[in-house]
Amino acid sequence: MYVGRALELLRKANAEVGDRVRVVRDDGLVLEGILMPRPRGGETIVIKLRNGYNVGIKIDRIVKIEVLEKAKKVERKVPPPPSRRPEYPLVKIIGTGGTIASRVDYETGAVKPAMSAGELVEEIPELLDYADIEAEQLLDILSENMMPSYWEKIAIAVHKELLRDEVSGVVVAHGTDTMAYTASAIAFAIQDMNKPVVFTGAQRSSDRPSSDAAFNLIASVITATKAPFAESVVVMHGETGDTFAAVHRGTRVRKFHSTRRDAFQTICGKPLAFVWPWVGEMKVIAEEYFPKGDWEPKLKPKFEPKVLQLRAYPGMEPDLLLLAKEKGYKGIIIEGTGMGHVPERVIPAIKELTDSGIFVGITTQCIHGTVNLNVYATGRKMLDAGAVPLGDMLTETATVKLMWALGNYEDIDKVKEIMLKPLAYEFSNRRLLNYYRLSLNA
Amino acid sequence: MYVGRALELLRKANAEVGDRVRVVRDDGLVLEGILMPRPRGGETIVIKLRNGYNVGIKIDRIVKIEVLEKAKKVERKVPPPPSRRPEYPLVKIIGTGGTIASRVDYETGAVKPAMSAGELVEEIPELLDYADIEAEQLLDILSENMMPSYWEKIAIAVHKELLRDEVSGVVVAHGTDTMAYTASAIAFAIQDMNKPVVFTGAQRSSDRPSSDAAFNLIASVITATKAPFAESVVVMHGETGDTFAAVHRGTRVRKFHSTRRDAFQTICGKPLAFVWPWVGEMKVIAEEYFPKGDWEPKLKPKFEPKVLQLRAYPGMEPDLLLLAKEKGYKGIIIEGTGMGHVPERVIPAIKELTDSGIFVGITTQCIHGTVNLNVYATGRKMLDAGAVPLGDMLTETATVKLMWALGNYEDIDKVKEIMLKPLAYEFSNRRLLNYYRLSLNA
Repeated sequence: MYVGRALELLRKANAEVGDRVRVVRDDGLVLEGILMPRPRGGETIVIKLRNGYNVGIKIDRIVKIEVLEKAKKVERKVPPPPSRRPEYPLVKIIGTGGTIASRVDYETGAVKPAMSAGELVEEIPELLDYADIEAEQLLDILSENMMPSYWEKIAIAVHKELLRDEVSGVVVAHGTDTMAYTASAIAFAIQDMNKPVVFTGAQRSSDRPSSDAAFNLIASVITATKAPFAESVVVMHGETGDTFAAVHRGTRVRKFHSTRRDAFQTICGKPLAFVWPWVGEMKVIAEEYFPKGDWEPKLKPKFEPKVLQLRAYPGMEPDLLLLAKEKGYKGIIIEGTGMGHVPERVIPAIKELTDSGIFVGITTQCIHGTVNLNVYATGRKMLDAGAVPLGDMLTETATVKLMWALGNYEDIDKVKEIMLKPLAYEFSNRRLLNYYRLSLNA
Repeated sequence: MYVGRALELLRKANAEVGDRVRVVRDDGLVLEGILMPRPRGGETIVIKLRNGYNVGIKIDRIVKIEVLEKAKKVERKVPPPPSRRPEYPLVKIIGTGGTIASRVDYETGAVKPAMSAGELVEEIPELLDYADIEAEQLLDILSENMMPSYWEKIAIAVHKELLRDEVSGVVVAHGTDTMAYTASAIAFAIQDMNKPVVFTGAQRSSDRPSSDAAFNLIASVITATKAPFAESVVVMHGETGDTFAAVHRGTRVRKFHSTRRDAFQTICGKPLAFVWPWVGEMKVIAEEYFPKGDWEPKLKPKFEPKVLQLRAYPGMEPDLLLLAKEKGYKGIIIEGTGMGHVPERVIPAIKELTDSGIFVGITTQCIHGTVNLNVYATGRKMLDAGAVPLGDMLTETATVKLMWALGNYEDIDKVKEIMLKPLAYEFSNRRLLNYYRLSLNA
């Protein structure tokens, strides 16, 4: 909410957040748009223009504010869910928050958006070309605030849907910051998956003309109905234009750009499939996957949150590792340099941790390529200290898998065995050199 | 050294590490090669075959060991440095250790390899096509053990060479694990650089047929003599074959594959140049760089090692950040999710740190793209808590720059000012979308 002089000014005009207003500036500029919530700082008010951009206007320069239309304050009229058409597959969309859910938020000024099937198909009627839609708002959090305990909630909700015969697949709308973590968590928490579980999100909110929300949702619904694989995947833009989407395996995907729409990449492998949402086509390119089937998926949704994720760097001190012991962490994933190295002077701390029954797993901060602790002396000393090299498992996936292994198994030897056993293609079975490319687009 | 039964067996044969031996196994297999130091574990001996591969043979299965040739135990005959040819430029090669220096190591069984100009040109005579070579072994460490205090040593040694009129450029041979860190450190520690400073290394040791050591050294010497830019750069394979090398800006480069020869990539930009070592050609593609010149470079070699580097992840707890305060760290770089976010519940810890005068800088774990803390509520709360967004500076570069800023400036406001001021192209001046590519090579 606005405070101080801004609030005073708005009160005088009887203008509230969400109202459509006209603002006149001292130089004669006239701006029309929706009054947005208070920006950081305070001495401006913010208007969302029709083109989707937000403009801040200094309070001192405002000559006049006029309300053109009050925000619809009454209960949002939620359109009724579309009726079921038996000849179409049914897709369940589960909302968890994030940019993909942000439109409703802005337009109503409401803090908690709800996602209803009626609204979804009203906004994106193309969805009905491929499936009937059921929707549920399970959570409403920005994905940077995602916690292992939420993964459990999501796993239970998704599992419930997978058990329903009439559901073809599940789509989970999620913020992009930690979407790869959650997709990976579901890959472990639901075993013997029987149908596709598709994570999707948006890099630009739906109130911006360049939003990728609708495109990604359509591609996800197509994936949920047409995919021959029963895996936890991420579906997002395949390139920066609106041509096709890529389907990435949840355990092998990484957010690789902070803002681009094609931010997600499959690491050490290729995507499972591509989807052309405007024509409803999907092309599977993976040679191997877990197929769909009519068995019953198993739920193992526990995650141990006391796992430390660290990154080796010059100057790294043992105290960073020893924190794990002091604070009761059960495991630690260290993203080493090169083939997985840490500075030699922190190796005694690794030994101290493993001697105390704390699992120490090693990944590489090179992102591409595999860990190998047998090549150099440092690596061999790390092995002697009890560190467990995790192949080419991504740091994010390794962290999730360790939380899951510690959440479901007590014995440290069993945890180690689980960490090294491929469960959901988290180790890439071929490390083809082709899947790494140098940015030589000079 | 070998111990126990293995030592007994070797003593009986009068075989020592470094000797050329013939081993006969109980199934009749005969292996010839250099006896290598004791492997981890112990019940095997290791032979390096002529093709460069190491083979372990179980002690129980050894029928016979025979020494073919004793290791040359006397002082290594160091070839004299080649005499100076005044018509050729002079390049100084400074050795710091790592894979690139590992050949001598294996062949002599010596622990400390020395790098002499005579040996270098004996092994890689092509170097003499481009320059006269002077060499110095400054350090001998695996780069995972690199410390901020070593950066100071390297900066002083490089600076000394840059002051010599007859030196055209400096090449620093370095392990690849943390080479990007050191290249970045030199970019800050030596200001107003007057000549190129070229970091290079090897992903495969020189005793392996696929070694990239010679190729990279030749490309580096060419760069040191022909480059029009006076910057700290990394020169490594440009693709997996032996065709060309890429010249990466030290502050914008990252080791991006644990094993490939073309492991290094320029992030958010293109390489400065390419080099074809077999024909001695260099093509500069950068539009902007710091040019060569006959001014005097300034030395500012201090680095504050008490900097924490952390990575945000779901489940991250405030205790990880508060460690900085408890253990007397002066600054911290957090690699946030997406546009630089951390879980909201650790934001009070950021405030506690900044209130205590600890610098908190934010980068993105997406690697590509820039930090922006103004878009989402979480980011704005981080700004309110005093976090400093560092644009598209790489996490590695940000860590080095913070160590450098804290090492040279006492006042925290000055440190903040320095961190946000572009000094060595550590902020990319254009974030062209082209420099990010999706792995769609299906």
